[in-house]
Amino acid sequence: MVLEEFIGIAAGLLTTIAVLPQIFKAIKTKEVNDVSPFMFIILCGGVGLWTVYGILKMDWPIILTNGISFILNAIMLYIVLVSSKNKVKA
Amino acid sequence: MVLEEFIGIAAGLLTTIAVLPQIFKAIKTKEVNDVSPFMFIILCGGVGLWTVYGILKMDWPIILTNGISFILNAIMLYIVLVSSKNKVKA
Repeated sequence: MVLEEFIGIAAGLLTTIAVLPQIFKAIKTKEVNDVSPFMFIILCGGVGLWTVYGILKMDWPIILTNGISFILNAIMLYIVLVSSKNKVKA
Repeated sequence: MVLEEFIGIAAGLLTTIAVLPQIFKAIKTKEVNDVSPFMFIILCGGVGLWTVYGILKMDWPIILTNGISFILNAIMLYIVLVSSKNKVKA
């Protein structure tokens, strides 16, 4: 494998899983007051568009990394929105 | 401009600026307890590697979007680390 390919795969892997520690922390502590929902709205928009870009180019690495990233960021956005809705009710 | 190029530029722009709302929220509220530092450590690693990838391929869009993203995520990581250090002292 060429060095470039290795770096590209490692970079894609890291940026895809980056949101996982934030999801685990939010589930564990049930506290997300300090987390900005707008960050995850914009991230979902961005990686969503990267997924469309990958589909238009039929580039599977781009489709997979950004597709998974979209799902994970959407989960985090859901956690933040549900939590702030519950806070309004309380 | 081809549709693909437009979508790629929009996607790159969104994923680059995504961390800005979190930085503004952290500066405004001075609270980052619920924010995971590991997310930003992994993100810095990922976009850092994407920047190296762009340099190896001499691909300026990849270098610019990920280089700026690296700086912004490093700023957010600094805010989280400094804040948790201050909390330890208090």
